[in-house]
Order: sequence, then structure tokens, then C-alpha cells
Amino acid sequence: MSETNVPRFIDLTAPQVAALPPDTVAVLPLGAVEQHGPHLPISTDYVTATEAAEAAVAVVAREGSAPVVLLPGLAYTKSDEHHWSPGTIWLSWDTLMHTLVDVGRSLQTSGITRLLFVNGHGGNSALGQVACREIRRRFGLRTFFAHLSVPVDQGGGGSTSSELGMGVHGGHNETSLMLHLRPELVHLELAGRRVPERLAEFDLIGFGKPVSFGWTSDDFGPDGYIGDPTGATAEHGKLLFELAVTRLAAVIGEAARFTTR
Amino acid sequence: MSETNVPRFIDLTAPQVAALPPDTVAVLPLGAVEQHGPHLPISTDYVTATEAAEAAVAVVAREGSAPVVLLPGLAYTKSDEHHWSPGTIWLSWDTLMHTLVDVGRSLQTSGITRLLFVNGHGGNSALGQVACREIRRRFGLRTFFAHLSVPVDQGGGGSTSSELGMGVHGGHNETSLMLHLRPELVHLELAGRRVPERLAEFDLIGFGKPVSFGWTSDDFGPDGYIGDPTGATAEHGKLLFELAVTRLAAVIGEAARFTTR
Amino acid sequence: MSETNVPRFIDLTAPQVAALPPDTVAVLPLGAVEQHGPHLPISTDYVTATEAAEAAVAVVAREGSAPVVLLPGLAYTKSDEHHWSPGTIWLSWDTLMHTLVDVGRSLQTSGITRLLFVNGHGGNSALGQVACREIRRRFGLRTFFAHLSVPVDQGGGGSTSSELGMGVHGGHNETSLMLHLRPELVHLELAGRRVPERLAEFDLIGFGKPVSFGWTSDDFGPDGYIGDPTGATAEHGKLLFELAVTRLAAVIGEAARFTTR
Amino acid sequence: MSETNVPRFIDLTAPQVAALPPDTVAVLPLGAVEQHGPHLPISTDYVTATEAAEAAVAVVAREGSAPVVLLPGLAYTKSDEHHWSPGTIWLSWDTLMHTLVDVGRSLQTSGITRLLFVNGHGGNSALGQVACREIRRRFGLRTFFAHLSVPVDQGGGGSTSSELGMGVHGGHNETSLMLHLRPELVHLELAGRRVPERLAEFDLIGFGKPVSFGWTSDDFGPDGYIGDPTGATAEHGKLLFELAVTRLAAVIGEAARFTTR
Amino acid sequence: MSETNVPRFIDLTAPQVAALPPDTVAVLPLGAVEQHGPHLPISTDYVTATEAAEAAVAVVAREGSAPVVLLPGLAYTKSDEHHWSPGTIWLSWDTLMHTLVDVGRSLQTSGITRLLFVNGHGGNSALGQVACREIRRRFGLRTFFAHLSVPVDQGGGGSTSSELGMGVHGGHNETSLMLHLRPELVHLELAGRRVPERLAEFDLIGFGKPVSFGWTSDDFGPDGYIGDPTGATAEHGKLLFELAVTRLAAVIGEAARFTTR
Amino acid sequence: MSETNVPRFIDLTAPQVAALPPDTVAVLPLGAVEQHGPHLPISTDYVTATEAAEAAVAVVAREGSAPVVLLPGLAYTKSDEHHWSPGTIWLSWDTLMHTLVDVGRSLQTSGITRLLFVNGHGGNSALGQVACREIRRRFGLRTFFAHLSVPVDQGGGGSTSSELGMGVHGGHNETSLMLHLRPELVHLELAGRRVPERLAEFDLIGFGKPVSFGWTSDDFGPDGYIGDPTGATAEHGKLLFELAVTRLAAVIGEAARFTTR
Repeated sequence: MSETNVPRFIDLTAPQVAALPPDTVAVLPLGAVEQHGPHLPISTDYVTATEAAEAAVAVVAREGSAPVVLLPGLAYTKSDEHHWSPGTIWLSWDTLMHTLVDVGRSLQTSGITRLLFVNGHGGNSALGQVACREIRRRFGLRTFFAHLSVPVDQGGGGSTSSELGMGVHGGHNETSLMLHLRPELVHLELAGRRVPERLAEFDLIGFGKPVSFGWTSDDFGPDGYIGDPTGATAEHGKLLFELAVTRLAAVIGEAARFTTR
Repeated sequence: MSETNVPRFIDLTAPQVAALPPDTVAVLPLGAVEQHGPHLPISTDYVTATEAAEAAVAVVAREGSAPVVLLPGLAYTKSDEHHWSPGTIWLSWDTLMHTLVDVGRSLQTSGITRLLFVNGHGGNSALGQVACREIRRRFGLRTFFAHLSVPVDQGGGGSTSSELGMGVHGGHNETSLMLHLRPELVHLELAGRRVPERLAEFDLIGFGKPVSFGWTSDDFGPDGYIGDPTGATAEHGKLLFELAVTRLAAVIGEAARFTTR
Repeated sequence: MSETNVPRFIDLTAPQVAALPPDTVAVLPLGAVEQHGPHLPISTDYVTATEAAEAAVAVVAREGSAPVVLLPGLAYTKSDEHHWSPGTIWLSWDTLMHTLVDVGRSLQTSGITRLLFVNGHGGNSALGQVACREIRRRFGLRTFFAHLSVPVDQGGGGSTSSELGMGVHGGHNETSLMLHLRPELVHLELAGRRVPERLAEFDLIGFGKPVSFGWTSDDFGPDGYIGDPTGATAEHGKLLFELAVTRLAAVIGEAARFTTR
Repeated sequence: MSETNVPRFIDLTAPQVAALPPDTVAVLPLGAVEQHGPHLPISTDYVTATEAAEAAVAVVAREGSAPVVLLPGLAYTKSDEHHWSPGTIWLSWDTLMHTLVDVGRSLQTSGITRLLFVNGHGGNSALGQVACREIRRRFGLRTFFAHLSVPVDQGGGGSTSSELGMGVHGGHNETSLMLHLRPELVHLELAGRRVPERLAEFDLIGFGKPVSFGWTSDDFGPDGYIGDPTGATAEHGKLLFELAVTRLAAVIGEAARFTTR
Repeated sequence: MSETNVPRFIDLTAPQVAALPPDTVAVLPLGAVEQHGPHLPISTDYVTATEAAEAAVAVVAREGSAPVVLLPGLAYTKSDEHHWSPGTIWLSWDTLMHTLVDVGRSLQTSGITRLLFVNGHGGNSALGQVACREIRRRFGLRTFFAHLSVPVDQGGGGSTSSELGMGVHGGHNETSLMLHLRPELVHLELAGRRVPERLAEFDLIGFGKPVSFGWTSDDFGPDGYIGDPTGATAEHGKLLFELAVTRLAAVIGEAARFTTR
Repeated sequence: MSETNVPRFIDLTAPQVAALPPDTVAVLPLGAVEQHGPHLPISTDYVTATEAAEAAVAVVAREGSAPVVLLPGLAYTKSDEHHWSPGTIWLSWDTLMHTLVDVGRSLQTSGITRLLFVNGHGGNSALGQVACREIRRRFGLRTFFAHLSVPVDQGGGGSTSSELGMGVHGGHNETSLMLHLRPELVHLELAGRRVPERLAEFDLIGFGKPVSFGWTSDDFGPDGYIGDPTGATAEHGKLLFELAVTRLAAVIGEAARFTTR
């Protein structure tokens, strides 16, 4: 599924970087290496973020709709909610924050003024927004933070009724995406339904509800996934992926001309 | 507007703290000291957060619906988006993070297992969620993060049509709240309409849109407020406040019995 | 005992802050939330510092003797010597240091050039002095560090003979102050005499002696207080409080015109 | 040139990670994104490290000579010597150190006991060794640090006589490697000879000499590369690459059975 | 003036360290490398602290009055008040704090339970006390902080009337000490009287007064010293030194048997 | 063995520092306080580094071959590989790094442009090189890192055949040096042969081999030394010392005139 003719930042020489057009959008995928239950590889968030970002950048480049370059994605990010499990490689909050800030600082020297994070891991969202402001304040870059798809616990929709809207990790959508992108790595036969039904007792606190709560994934049981992957299909994954790519391509276009006044 | 008979953590002696009932919810208001334009005091977020938290704690205590104590609020928080202005006293992201984590660590020694942040300042939301997870992971507390009202740029509603849904700082609602809570400190005659209309040109990036962006308040102009306070009224503020108190009292009740399985 | 007409920094708007007169002294009370034995609330240091600072600022403002504003006090400070006890909420040394430095940095943007800490907790004294120099060096503010009353272990007098000069925490003076300021929160009937008589065997090392020593409050026994509160009275507390207020008002006056050459 | 059947850590599920055989060697490539003169892409060190590590892991896996998995490489590392140039994205020393330590900490939870860094960027060598010891001490992992090829300034040989033994960045060998691995990204026509001949005046201080010195790449001129790429060939690059792969495969074998007593 | 038969920690082998008697007092001199005006070497505080500590340890060892070892002194400490001047080598507050804490942590492994800082530089006093508590809390060592002589601005006496009690840096006493200890390095002919007479106008704020202030030494003028060294003599220095040694020897004795209950 | 007429930085006054000639080389010895087995004092690395540096500076000063000053050495450095043993006082990696950077920052204010570390402890080498680059980048100093003798595990030779080239800590050479410099502190009768013969089984990983590994000294056994000191002699030590001094004197000369273009 690897795209050719994707404009990659690291394929350039230093003088070529210096010659990038004004308002070029640098796109940085944020993945994760973290347990995703017995049915999905630990690369899941990394794969979805990098594949979607790459495809979106390819679309924009092909259409010439905005100047854009793809940065190497970050595989290791903030997966502290899965710290307890084999397979999780997690950076502490300050390590990831310093990483993002260092990247922003460096891009300033490269003349890049617009930085778009494409995030595949819900656990990065909060810190990523902190980083966006820090980079804006200190280095002047316009910064943007896009989710591959908005996580359910952050206001996004799309979780199935079987999931009671709580397919936040390794559930229907994520499993479908991986059935589309990496079918050989999905072990659907090992998956069941793991929906924290107790959460439905609360009106105000919970995933996608007004009050968030601090959780680690073992709060919900020993299996580490939250959702119902049993009905996932590659077709649904393909649809989700194509929607995400289309939306991200549009985001890149907006990011290139975004202004606040 | 100060409540009597509010159960305050700091009114207790050490042995009284040790004897608090299981599942007592400790409520920590998060304010801000930051510029709010020419018409609102820099205390705005601190006042609204502490007044609402105090009133909600009083309601719960009066009703006996859950064990609860009120912690001293934090006046100085993460106002880096207003760093450029007189009146703003801001902690850097790591200072605030360490403060919240230190509080969580200390509460563990006090036998407190449930900590609810009541936040009056949108700029604290992202970092507060990072802290909730960190405190959960390291000290085992159940942590909750509630907004006084969900900020517009974080999915909340309620901004007026005049504001195009962008009354994020010093606008209609916040000004109304202060006309209700501290009318003598509001200078409505100095306020105009400051709505970043350019943002309406973008579908995907913006306040309350799927893609967030890193901003400081001087990105929108020299006046530092974003919204249209001109039609604010104390009556509207009273309504908002009472809704917030009622909702927060219910949140406290849920927090006391919240479980994930 | 809350004063009206106290000039509070946070009651101002940003333009009002910018218009403060030159040499305005910003007064920042430093309290603590920490165990004070079975007879005093954990708010003791916070109450005494904030009440005295507020009263002193009110005196200066009423007399017009110097330009002055009161900042919101810090409730959570460096109480690591009481880390072992329920009721103590303590910041680590670097968290508090960064907090104080961040405040100093912010005040520079507000045009404030003089910052006076009014400290109610002996455990803050050393770090507070480190912060005073750091803020002076980096941001150019003139900084001052005043104790509500000079702690016994830092050269202050006033501990009773029953205390052998060692009433450093929850003893005669502090209990008297709270009997004056918050009588309803004092449980004098639970207090005894807790004086570390062994310390009298040492001439050079000890509270108020030339050589200081590193201690935590459980070094002296399980009760957490050090002194003899049994004879404390509200009258004595009133006297101490009024002396402190008078002295602090004079300090503010000096701080406004202080110069080194 | 991408290998199939490479055992990749992130292709596994969490239970599969937990079931990895004892003494599995986890291989972590360390690249860089940094200016490499006008003739080489900024990906050079990342490409060479990841390609060689992947090929070596594939050899070992094919031969079954040792249990091994490949971790996602780090593209952004410590390139502070090229901080001044567009195209360089550099982490500060403490950001990279914390990243490496966080990875080591996480691998402990995964049951991994052997970690091999394969480094393509000389600027990572010193810090990488600090990390190896820190991870050993704190988490008990056996850690190893291998260079793709030992850098000239760290005792390695192979720089051409035209380079006076100083082809440390973008010179004959590195350019040859990239002509082999990514010929379409090499702009040999833009390269000249950039050898710091002045260094030959010193016997004791210099690249590959007993005394090292602190340098940034602009110390040697504005072009940012140090060496003589003009005679580089794909054939020489192929030879270097194959030697590196063979050597790394042997290193992996040793790492799997390494013991100190 | 170097003592023979001083028991030095670093002269021991590891097994000898492990065999030190219980309650051995480890003595750590804290000096400074900082400008001391045109008449004194930048080593002044380091020389006085290390010479006095060494002599006191020698006395105690000779008398057998307590088990004691001398640690290597720290030359570079917290001289941020002299940051502006050539000759000053200063550690930031957190660097010094971490150094002291690391030493305390290490001594715990050596079985040392009593650590005495002998401080020759007033600028270390506050942070040293913070470190004493931190080491006590985290590693259980009994920690003590002694001044060579109590600095004037911290309650010590002995400054001459010509100095108005403000001979805090490079004045009568310090110059006399160096005339005794290192006469060949004193340039008395270059010294004048540098007393900040303006400070006498303030009753509450100042050196040795109840309220401390944050200062750097260039606040008082360009010469960097504060006091009146013109009348300094070696005889007076000898007297001061001998008093300090006698007092420190007694402190070591107390430190070896110090207990809080 | 203490040299007279060594130009010591700390013997100077501040104005004398300011008047040092351009290109003066400041020499900073780096030692260690760490276990060295039962036969050598824990001062070993500190003694050898400071004695050699002092002697070399004396030679250069006597010959007038280059402007040079000797800085006070650091006794406490990065000995984390010996963290487990009594006698070791170790700074963590970041404490030492910040110390070195603070020194570099301070020397810039003194007008020093050339800084040479003379290192007696192999465990400092990697971090020292990181510091050299950081100081070069941030403060512009030319920095140099010289080993007293290049450690065996970093490419140096000279370990005896009995040691199989692995006399890295407390072995033949180090013991000989101490027999020359501090014979009264060497307990040769307690030493045996402690050579990790298992390491000889590995071709690529090991001391002085292409691939380094992370180790702590207890990885090799409980005695803490690695090598064969049994045949050490003062004569061999004298030879090594004189060679080191001669070489370091030449390094100082080169450092004073070193340039990169």
C-alpha cells in the first residue's frame, strides 16, 4: 500500500529543504507501539496513522493543491495507559513533549512554518495539543493536530451500538482498518466482545461524556482491549480509511492557507 | 456568595483527614490569572471555577449524597496563550504538571482515592487530562476532569450566533457569569465584538472543529478577548452558573461511586 | 476577618495592571497545607500568612503609604518535612521553585518590579530565598522574603520557656494565632506538650542554634507537632497577629522604596 | 530493497511478544535526519542504519542462528552538530537519553533482556553508550551498541587517502552507501572535496586521534560535509553494505549468547 | 598548612569504607569559585572552608573524640549572585541541589549515616538546607549544615563598625582569614571601603535584618565586594580561623551523637 | 608530588582572570570517587587525573609553550557502574552533564575560549564528549577531551597479556600508577587476578572490540576490579605517569593553537 511519489522531507537535501515553498505543510504522523489485545498487532496505531498520512500527502501532492512534505512518523509515543502490558513501548509525558518541541524547534531552522500532526493514538491527543501551543508560542509555527479519526472518548462518533459507543481501543473500527491495511496481522478468531458495560451507568463521566476520567487499560479487565471487534470487516475498514484520507487531504489544504485574521 | 458549611479539606486536622469516609471525593478547582480583555478581571476563570466548585460541594454536603471535601483551588495555572499580556501569571506546562502530580501523590498519603478537577480555564484541559492519567497510573487514584462548562473549542456549545460559535475567551457566557458573580469588576462599557471571522472560512480547522490548532490570544488581535461580550447579562450568567452547579453536584455524586468494572 | 478595600491584583483588568504605579509592591502569601497535630487545622500556615498579608496590605492601602497589590496566596508549598502524614499536600523542592520563578517571570511582563513573599511556613524559607535571588538575576525584580514571624529555628524568638525555645510547629504561638483567627477550628483539648528535650543536650546543633540539621517532623515522635500549645490563648494570638500586621505594613513601605545604592 | 520475512516486533500482538523466546535480541536502528551537504539526502544515516539492521535481522532469522526481532528505528536523534542547517531535526541530549531509557524500561515489561542499538550516526555514539549503562543498571537488560561502521573519529578506518582519514560526514563511504541504497537521491554532481586540511597539523587532537574535540559541522565551512565524496561509487557502497550486514548478523548472534561470567 | 593524619574518605579502599564505625561523621566542605573583588583570589571561600574543615577533622581524629572522615570539598557551587563577573564559576540551583542529593544517595550505600556540610560561601546556605532535608527524607541520613562562620546576612555577627555590619563579601573578616591562610594571594593595596550605606536607611530589610532580599553583587556597584577590607590583618584572621576550627571540632562531636528523641 | 608554580585559576583575582591572555587553555581534571577493589583507594582516578594534569600544566607553564591555567578538578563524577559498592560516590548522568555545562557557561563569562578536560575515569568519557559538543554549540568554547591514558575499552592499548587486554579497572596499569603516586594507599597483598575470561569468547562485543556493551562492575563478580594487578610496580607506574604528563603537555600546546580551518 506504499505510495510512490510521496514528497518526503527526508528524501531532500539540505539546500532542497531550504528551497521549499512558503507555507509548506510538514505532516508528522504520530503512532504508538502498544498492546491492542490478542487480535491486533502492537503497530496498529502506527500503521493507521502513517498509512493515512502518506496517502493524504500523496493526494495533495498529486493534485498540487498545497505545498506539503511528509516527515518520518513517531512510532514510540505516549502509551502510558498500556504500560502494564508486554508489547507496549511508551514514552513518559515529558519525553514525548520534549520530542515534539525539539522537532518544532528544528523545523523553524528549516524555514517550515506549518506543522500538522496526524495522530493515530488517542493517548497522544491531550499532550499533542499542549505541544501545539508550546511550539506556536516559542517558535512561531502554525501547528495543527488532526486525528486519523476523532476518538470516541474525545467526541468522535462511529462506535457501534454493540460497543455502546465505547470502542476506544482495538474495537470495531480499528480492527476493520487493520483488516484493510494489514489483514495478515489480524487474528480475529482470538477476539471477543470487551465492552465496559458498567460505564453505561454513568451519565456524566465516561468515554465521550462531558467529564473525562484517568484510566489505564487494565482498569477494564486483563485483555487490554475495549470494544467489540467481532464484526469487523475489511470493507468497513476500507471505507473508514478512504474517508480519513480524503478528510486529511482537505485538512492539509486548509493548513496551508490557515490564518487567524 | 461564599457558602457556609462547605466541607473544606484544610479546615480539618490531620487525624480528621485520616478519618474521612472511603470514596470521599476531593474537589480541586483550577482557575487562572490571565488577561481577559479590558472588561473582565484577570481573576475570571479562578472566580468562576472556585465559586461553582464551592457551591456544588455545598449542595452535595447539604444533601449528603456523597462524601466530599473541597481543596484550595489553584489560581496560577497554564495560561501560556496569554503570556504576552500584563495581568497574566502563567506556569509552564511542566510546572503545572508537576504541581498536579505532587497533589495527587500527597492525597494518596491522606487516603484519598478520588480526585475531581473542576476547571474554569480551557487552557488547562489538555494538560489536566495528562495529569489525570499520570496520577491514576502512579498513585492509583481515580481521577476526573470536569469543565465548569465545556469550552467551545473542545466541543462545548452555547456560544452565541453573534460569536459564530467562537466565544472562547471573555465572550458572552464568561462575561455573563462575571456579571452574576462579580458585577462590580466588570467593565462592559469597554467591551466590543471581537470575533475572528476569518476562522469561519475553514471547515475542518478551528474552534470546535475536528482539527485543533495551536494559538496564542494575540494571534487574533491586540485586545486579547475572543467573542462578543456586548450582550452579556447577569441573568444569563445566573442561569449558566446554576446549571453548572447542578451539573457539578451530579458529577461529584457519580465520581464517588464510579467504577470501570 | 476578611478585609474590604484590599487592592487585589486579580480584581484588576489587564489594562489596569499595565497602569499600576511604578514601584508597586506585589505581595504573595506563602502558606502550607500540612499536618499540625491533632489540635490545629492543616490550613494553619496558609490562614496565618494570608490573613496577615491581607491585613497589612489593607493598612498600607488605607494609609496610602505605598503602592501595593495583593496576589493570590499559594496554599500548596514545600511541606516535605510532613510528607508522612495524612493532611499534608506538599510540592517537591523543584516544583515549588519553578512555581515561584514562573510567577516572577510573569510579573515582569506585568511591569511589576517589586515582589514581597509573606511566608507563614518555616519550611519555605530556604527555598524562598533561593527563588528571590533567581528572580532577581533573571527577571530584574527586587524580591523580598518576610516571615509572618521569624521561625524559632531561623533565629526568631518568642517561644515560651516551657518550649525551651523549640516551639517550631503547632506550639504556643501558632496555636494562639489560630485561636484568634479560627477559634472554631482549634481543638485545644487534644493537645499536650511535645518538646524534644533531647535537643537541649546539644549546644551547637538545633533549632535556633548555629548549626541547622535536616529533619522531618516524625523524627520527634508520632504526633507531628513540636512545642507546647497547652497554654495558648486567643489574646496572645491577637497580640502576635497585630504585631505581625504592623511589621508587615512597614516592610511593604520599605520594599516600595528599597534601593541598594 | 525492503526485506520480506523480517521478524518485526511491531507485527506481533501483545501475547506474541510475551511468548518470544528467552534471550531474544531486540534490534533498534538509530538514524538521523540531518543535513548531509548538497549531494546527499538528510535521511542518509537513517537509511543506512535501518537498511543494514533490517538486512542483518533477516539473515539471522533466515539462518535461525539466534532469536531476534527488529524494532522501529529512531529517525530523529542527536544531531546537534548540524543544528544550524535547514534539514536537520535534532533532539537535545536529554530528550534522546530519556527516549532511549524509556524504550529500555518498556522492553523490560515485554520480557526482552537483550537490546542492540544499530547506529548510523556518529553523533549518537557517546550518548548511546551512556544509555546502554543506564538501561543495564536500572532495568537489567544486556545492552549493546554497534555502529553500522565504526566512525572515523571514533577509531574506525576506511576513509580514503584523499580524505586524510577524515571522511566523517557525507564523504566517500557514506556517499557510496547511498549510491548503492538510494541512487536516485544522490546528487554527486553537486559534491566537491571538503577536507579540513588544517586538522592534519595536529598530532594529538582530531578525528581518530587520541584527544577528541567538540565540534559543530559549520566549524569546517559553510557546506556542512566533511570528506571527499567525488569518487564515491555504488559498487564500493554495495561492498560496504554487505560487509556491514554480515558483521551485524554476527553481532546479533553474539548478543544472544553474551555473558560476562 | 596542610594537615597530615587527616582521615580522608578517599584514601580508603571500598572494604575500608564498609568497615567504618557506626555514626561516623562524613564532613563535606562547600566552597566557591567566585569573584572576590580585586584584592582576594576567587578561591577564597573554597580555601577557608576546606582548610577549616580539614583542621577540625584533624583535631577530632587526634583527640579520638568522634569517628570522622573528610570528603573532597566542592569547589564549584552556587555563586549566581556573582554570575556577571570573570572568575566566577557557578552551578545553577538545580545542578548543585542534584549534586548534593547524589552525594547523599551514594553515602547511604557506603553505610554513612551522618553528613556534615561545612560551608564557606553564604550563597550556598539556603539551598544547602533544602538539601539537608531532602537527603534526610529520602535516604535517612542525619544531615547538618555548619557555616565556617555564620554570615552577617544570616544572623552572624562580627562585621566591623566601619562596615555597618555589612561585611558580607570580601570584607574585614574574609580578608583577614586569607591574610592568615594565603597571604601571597591577597592584594590589600587594591582594596578600599565598599559599604552599601544606603542599606542603613532601612530598618526591616537588609543584611542581618528580619526581611531578606534577593541580590546580585553588582547591585552594590561594579567592584563586587561588600565590606571594608582595608584594616584586615593576618592576626585577626588567625584568631577567626582558630575559633572556627575549635567550633567545628565541637560540631563534629555533637553530630556523631546527635539524636532527636 | 605537589607542584609549585602551577598557574591555578583559583589563585587569581577576578581582574586577573579578565586579563588572561587570549587562547589560554583551561584544564579541568575529571576524577572519580569509586570502589577500586580491595587494593586501591577510592581516590585512584581522581589522584591520577589531578596529578597528571597538574604536572602537565606545570611543564607547559615552565616552558612558556602555551597560556594555560589549571581549574579545580571534579572528584565526584559519573561512576554509576560502581553504584552498588561502598566507597562509590556517583553523580547521575544528568547531574554531571549539567555540572560540565555550567562550568562551560561560566568560563565564557571569564573570557576563556579553550577548555581541556583531563579524564582519569573511563566512565566519564562518553558523557564528557556529549558535554564538549554542548559547550561548543551553546557557548562557543573550543573543547577538548583527553584521557590520562586511553582506556582499554575505548581503543587504548597497554593492558598486559595476563589481562587479555581487559585491565579496565584496578588492573596492572592503574595499580602501577598508584604505586608510584600513593604507595602508602595501595594494598597489593589483597589483590588477585580478576580477568573476565568469558569475554574472550566473543569476537565483536567486548572491551576494546567494535561493539560496546553496557555493564556495571558487579557483572564480573563481587570484587569490583577487572584486570590483574598482581604484577604492578611503581617503576611501571612512573613510566606511565611520565608518558602521560609529556603527552598531556603536548595536548595543551595543541589545544592553545587548535583551529578547524
